[in-house]
Amino acid sequence: MNFGHFDDEKREYVITNPQTPWPWINYLGNEDFFSLISNTAGGYSFYKDAKFRRITRYRYNNVPMDNGGKYFYINDGGTIWSPGWKPCKTPLDDYSCRHGMNYTVIKGAKNGIEAEVLYFVPLKTWAEVQKVSLKNNTDQSKKIKLFSFVEWALWNAATDMENFQRNFSTGEVEIDGSTIYHKTEYKERRNHYAYYSVNAPIGGFETDRETFFGLYNGFDEPQTVLEGGPRNSVAHGWSPIASHFVEVELQPGESKELVFVLGYVENEQDDKWESKNIINKTKAKATLERFNTAEKVDAALAELKAYWEKLLGVFTLNSKEEKLNRMVNIWNQYQCMITFCFSRSASFFESGIGRGMGFRDSNQDLIGFVHQIPERARERIIDIASTQFPDGGCYHQYQPLTKKGNNEIGQGFNDDPMWLILGATSYIKETGDFSILVEPVPFDNEPGTEVSMFEHLTVSFDHVVNNLGPHGLPLIGRADWNDCLNLNCFSNDPNESFQTTENKTEGSKAESLMIAGLFVVYGRDYVELCRKLDKNEEADRAQKHIDAMVEAVKQHGWDGEWFLRAYDYYGNKVGSDENEEGKIFIESNGWCTMAGIGMEEGMVAKALDSVKERLDCEHGIVLNNPAFTKYYIEYGEISSYPAGYKENAGIFCHNNPWIMIGETVQGRGDRAWDYFRKICPAYTEHLSDLHKVEPYVYAQMIAGKDAFKPGEAKNSWLTGTAAWNYYTITQYILGIRPTYDGLLMDPCVPAEWDGFQVTRTFRGTTFNIEVTNPNGVMKGVIELWIDGEKADGSLVPIIGKASCEVKVIMG
Amino acid sequence: MNFGHFDDEKREYVITNPQTPWPWINYLGNEDFFSLISNTAGGYSFYKDAKFRRITRYRYNNVPMDNGGKYFYINDGGTIWSPGWKPCKTPLDDYSCRHGMNYTVIKGAKNGIEAEVLYFVPLKTWAEVQKVSLKNNTDQSKKIKLFSFVEWALWNAATDMENFQRNFSTGEVEIDGSTIYHKTEYKERRNHYAYYSVNAPIGGFETDRETFFGLYNGFDEPQTVLEGGPRNSVAHGWSPIASHFVEVELQPGESKELVFVLGYVENEQDDKWESKNIINKTKAKATLERFNTAEKVDAALAELKAYWEKLLGVFTLNSKEEKLNRMVNIWNQYQCMITFCFSRSASFFESGIGRGMGFRDSNQDLIGFVHQIPERARERIIDIASTQFPDGGCYHQYQPLTKKGNNEIGQGFNDDPMWLILGATSYIKETGDFSILVEPVPFDNEPGTEVSMFEHLTVSFDHVVNNLGPHGLPLIGRADWNDCLNLNCFSNDPNESFQTTENKTEGSKAESLMIAGLFVVYGRDYVELCRKLDKNEEADRAQKHIDAMVEAVKQHGWDGEWFLRAYDYYGNKVGSDENEEGKIFIESNGWCTMAGIGMEEGMVAKALDSVKERLDCEHGIVLNNPAFTKYYIEYGEISSYPAGYKENAGIFCHNNPWIMIGETVQGRGDRAWDYFRKICPAYTEHLSDLHKVEPYVYAQMIAGKDAFKPGEAKNSWLTGTAAWNYYTITQYILGIRPTYDGLLMDPCVPAEWDGFQVTRTFRGTTFNIEVTNPNGVMKGVIELWIDGEKADGSLVPIIGKASCEVKVIMG
Repeated sequence: MNFGHFDDEKREYVITNPQTPWPWINYLGNEDFFSLISNTAGGYSFYKDAKFRRITRYRYNNVPMDNGGKYFYINDGGTIWSPGWKPCKTPLDDYSCRHGMNYTVIKGAKNGIEAEVLYFVPLKTWAEVQKVSLKNNTDQSKKIKLFSFVEWALWNAATDMENFQRNFSTGEVEIDGSTIYHKTEYKERRNHYAYYSVNAPIGGFETDRETFFGLYNGFDEPQTVLEGGPRNSVAHGWSPIASHFVEVELQPGESKELVFVLGYVENEQDDKWESKNIINKTKAKATLERFNTAEKVDAALAELKAYWEKLLGVFTLNSKEEKLNRMVNIWNQYQCMITFCFSRSASFFESGIGRGMGFRDSNQDLIGFVHQIPERARERIIDIASTQFPDGGCYHQYQPLTKKGNNEIGQGFNDDPMWLILGATSYIKETGDFSILVEPVPFDNEPGTEVSMFEHLTVSFDHVVNNLGPHGLPLIGRADWNDCLNLNCFSNDPNESFQTTENKTEGSKAESLMIAGLFVVYGRDYVELCRKLDKNEEADRAQKHIDAMVEAVKQHGWDGEWFLRAYDYYGNKVGSDENEEGKIFIESNGWCTMAGIGMEEGMVAKALDSVKERLDCEHGIVLNNPAFTKYYIEYGEISSYPAGYKENAGIFCHNNPWIMIGETVQGRGDRAWDYFRKICPAYTEHLSDLHKVEPYVYAQMIAGKDAFKPGEAKNSWLTGTAAWNYYTITQYILGIRPTYDGLLMDPCVPAEWDGFQVTRTFRGTTFNIEVTNPNGVMKGVIELWIDGEKADGSLVPIIGKASCEVKVIMG
Repeated sequence: MNFGHFDDEKREYVITNPQTPWPWINYLGNEDFFSLISNTAGGYSFYKDAKFRRITRYRYNNVPMDNGGKYFYINDGGTIWSPGWKPCKTPLDDYSCRHGMNYTVIKGAKNGIEAEVLYFVPLKTWAEVQKVSLKNNTDQSKKIKLFSFVEWALWNAATDMENFQRNFSTGEVEIDGSTIYHKTEYKERRNHYAYYSVNAPIGGFETDRETFFGLYNGFDEPQTVLEGGPRNSVAHGWSPIASHFVEVELQPGESKELVFVLGYVENEQDDKWESKNIINKTKAKATLERFNTAEKVDAALAELKAYWEKLLGVFTLNSKEEKLNRMVNIWNQYQCMITFCFSRSASFFESGIGRGMGFRDSNQDLIGFVHQIPERARERIIDIASTQFPDGGCYHQYQPLTKKGNNEIGQGFNDDPMWLILGATSYIKETGDFSILVEPVPFDNEPGTEVSMFEHLTVSFDHVVNNLGPHGLPLIGRADWNDCLNLNCFSNDPNESFQTTENKTEGSKAESLMIAGLFVVYGRDYVELCRKLDKNEEADRAQKHIDAMVEAVKQHGWDGEWFLRAYDYYGNKVGSDENEEGKIFIESNGWCTMAGIGMEEGMVAKALDSVKERLDCEHGIVLNNPAFTKYYIEYGEISSYPAGYKENAGIFCHNNPWIMIGETVQGRGDRAWDYFRKICPAYTEHLSDLHKVEPYVYAQMIAGKDAFKPGEAKNSWLTGTAAWNYYTITQYILGIRPTYDGLLMDPCVPAEWDGFQVTRTFRGTTFNIEVTNPNGVMKGVIELWIDGEKADGSLVPIIGKASCEVKVIMG
């Protein structure tokens, strides 16, 4: 069942039934000020850091689920309704929610009144703008009462929901004309406040939540709205909110527009006050000035759309697969950018409290957006590398506000360093900007410790080399990419986090075949980079380690039909046929086949066939099989999940592309495509009832075949899945792959595809690429034409021209 | 306005209007299994530790405020209602909530059906029992549908509201007959599960929250209840709940009773399973067996009432002040016991997450309950002392489950050690049990470090002696009792906790006059104890330090009209007439007058008069005056609060008794009584509209005269206020004071009181004490008669008899 449809022309998903199986959300803002908004206007805003600068309050996992947001209430002659259906839930005559690129438009109609709310964060603006359009479609004049609503969070989202002893006494506001200022704690150490305003005179306001709702009323029936007017409450402690009251008179057919602005301001410490206890409002007023008419708002929206037009235009696919075009051209790229902006911090599954920027996450995310915003990718790579230790080890996360490593989340995930090589080389391949390699970058953000970025890559490479186990395979450390495979943890205390509890790595024999494959893949990238830089001695040295690793994998990492997953603390096999549960895992088979290890011996094909036979199912490829049905203290968190969910045999979408790429290494485009389609949201839209989460973005996890409800998805939006699928479809299936020296044409598609066109802007040139497949092959380029000239091989070199016509003939 | 009334006969507060100005709650359980329950059945349960063993989920600061609890829903021919009004909010024909001693009875009636629910935790039971009585008062037979509801928390209350990535995949339940078992994470490291059962066959159940409510419905309209029957959902991940469905047929006039049990079980690690993935239910079934009939439940309630009868019977007042009798005999003692059980962990203002057992809190709480449960007080004192360091310093808190010091909350609050002397001497005075002093007690829970409890008192005393500042006054350390007066903190980062951030005590001159007074008062207790133990040399040594402190206070701590509060980091005065704001503080004036420092020079009377003049107001004595209106980095958190709230000139009820005792030292019974009455809940019941919180227990804070809403109270229930007021009224105003050698008779009352009677059980004897005041004095005993014999002085010595008649004549 569908709850809406794609509007590719407008780059929107249009929801027409408010009762989606889960809140279907969108993200506003892409630099400093951010909002999450559901299809019924639920959600919240924050500035840069979802934990430390939460602007509006949101309650996760509430009853009903998505409760609280940027609500508008209309009292039309006693009938109370909201344009987004919720929170009033008054049945509407018409409803739609259009989620577009960083904007959302929610429209509702009731009794001849149409109310549309446009929500977006204008470019370079520390504010969310809401344009409310009201139209009277009746033949009578109408006077309606409009109430806005936001609830202020007391800045720190964690203590906001814990420390009521303090919180219930600290709330402070200031009201100035049509603007309500939230200044809790501004008197003391904060240099920031928030505000909510409307570009019209108001008939009153509320700033005290209890006065607005009444102590016993829910979001669906605020006392003030029911009573038809506010009491002009001034919050002192308890829970400050901001609600404007505007009476709007509409003649038959008349429309009126109001602009609400929810903003954030930081002042200099010595410029905080206008007069004693009266905040300096200069910056807020300047922002309000920028959006004080509907026309200015429309212009800002047009700018935002132009911005996205440009971002998304770097890669455009035209194929016979409409759903694929939609994902590649719009939604997958959009999700990559959102993931860049939010990392794993704030979604309707991530509470914005627990997680900063991940070292490995951020590097992987980068492969999904580096072509769109290379300059911000560059900055991100330097930020990430600056948290590294001199031995190549890493904090697992860093805080977005301070950019410092977050020690609370631990260290010692031994795959982490290798991802930096992926991030840096991807950036250079996209941009040709080798200058990043000579940037001075500190260790652990310690001034004075700076070495070149290139040296960071070297210590990253060497971190694996210097941490090998008894089989010459990489020691797993705290865990590798699968941070639920905690081979050195041995946790038996339920209050311990598997991620941070003491890890018994001393004397451990736990080795990871996944890191082994990763090392071979990105080690080769490192070697290639060295050669490019004429550092041939270093390249030779590195190559020897890679060769040794390949041998170690063949000798100690092959289980007969697939690659082992790991050796545990005691040196026992994990992911072997000799195990009772968890006989085979996806990660090692993905990376070792991507690395082509044992290709000639048939290991790659055999491993991939085993994956197909044992891990594949209707909804995607599960992580391991059989699922664990009891707790293994020597494996840790993976065995703590119910069978079929998350790391315990769920379809962890992030890693499915590794198998897809492995299949392209083997040349099997049909299998790669089949896997791609299974987890691709546009292709599962009709399963929305089962799938639950948004049909326009990837979810981190789909319940696997061992689950109670296979196919049910969770943790949508913020997942490396977006980047990996985008990377895989564009670079390995469509096969348009940036290299240091040009764009490589290396498609690997189903034999029945007869071709496709791609427009790709790369190093200043727009390449119009036409791929044809006259012989119905899955892989192989027999002819390459560049601007009408036949070329050798399959590399399109860098040319200085603005545009270039490329023809690729497969065969 | 009143929302109910006291029923002293039954020891209940009876709420007759469900819409109280704030949820008015009660506590169930007094040993291991605990519940909080509001007057509309909101609240939750936990086992021992509100953070780590949260059994049911509760959302603080929700909209509506108190949303979620132990709800029953009735569907009577399509009319949906709840006995507690909420969550359905269907208007009831009758409603009452009776909060009694560790039990609550909520009764509602609608359309001729009466539904009464008794909630309590039976003694020595890891379960909450709910007896539902349904009665048909119509003349027609009725068939009603009853639905129970609890929502399981995923054990750790902190991660339960943060880590949805994991939580939404882990929920697991088992259904066996009429019992629903919650076994999330039991498969892995937990050895505990919870269950919810009913003593009747059920017509169905729900265990998946979304199925029960629907994604878009609130607590007020569960889909299952609206539809009139369940779908027998089995939770897999998302949010597990437990709801039974029972159809009940009632003939005209007929009553039926159902017993629901919400329990918790721990199993041995090797005895967790009945068979693979089927939990061992033996212990749950044994508990269910104990409460499988209404008769057994009634018997258990009778036992609980008998238990409280005995506890409260140790001190009984009969005076002409009905409200005072009610507080002394019932509610104040009850609150002291609740505070003993919960410390500061879980109330409707304390989220159960942030705070463990406080070192100073627990010692002070002890003076409120030591007469009721001396053996548990003894255990508590040893637990507390075991967290002390060898130099006398202390962790500020320890965790109730582990009893280990909690380093996250910090150390170095320099008043902490002195409170141990209060706790230990109060215990010995009550019981005569000097054996506690030779108990071996470790430092920092380190085995092998044990010294005698007496030595812990010595290092406590010496911790002050060894930490004196430039004026010979005690260094304040991180802070003293007022942990918002952070004189060494200098925090300018809003994400820092004032309690735990780095403290610049090195080289600091910050001294506390409050600790000075405290040291003199409890130092004298220490000296008295030493003499009692014939440790005269130690007594002499200690006395010298006390004498020096008295001199230091007189010389450096007197501001002319009152006692200074402190010297700050730089040696500047705090709480002096020369300050612009915060000229005078309550704490130092309380403790220095309690210590009688400068009595002969008139300092005590002068200081108390200044308190009266500058700090007293209609609703109590504010903490400081004038309130701080801006942030003082050198004072810290105190200046972060809005004026009139909390430590910034709020009426912090905990410290008001210090002034009351100070007034008794000066002999002014009228002032002491006046102060007592102002903050005593029974005396402010008629102000419930303004006061907001429960009229049967003390609140930590009442907004002071500088506040926006003076008289509004916050943070009810868990506060040292309970113990201090009980201690003050019984030992210093009524003046029945335990000493090592007997009961001292030292009343200090208003001159117009003509007397009162007290029954006090002490050292095995029940003393029936009659105090008369024929001459209308405030203080002074001129005659003492013991069992008809005239005695000298005012001490009633210990006698071996079961009962004893005492007559005290004031004059």
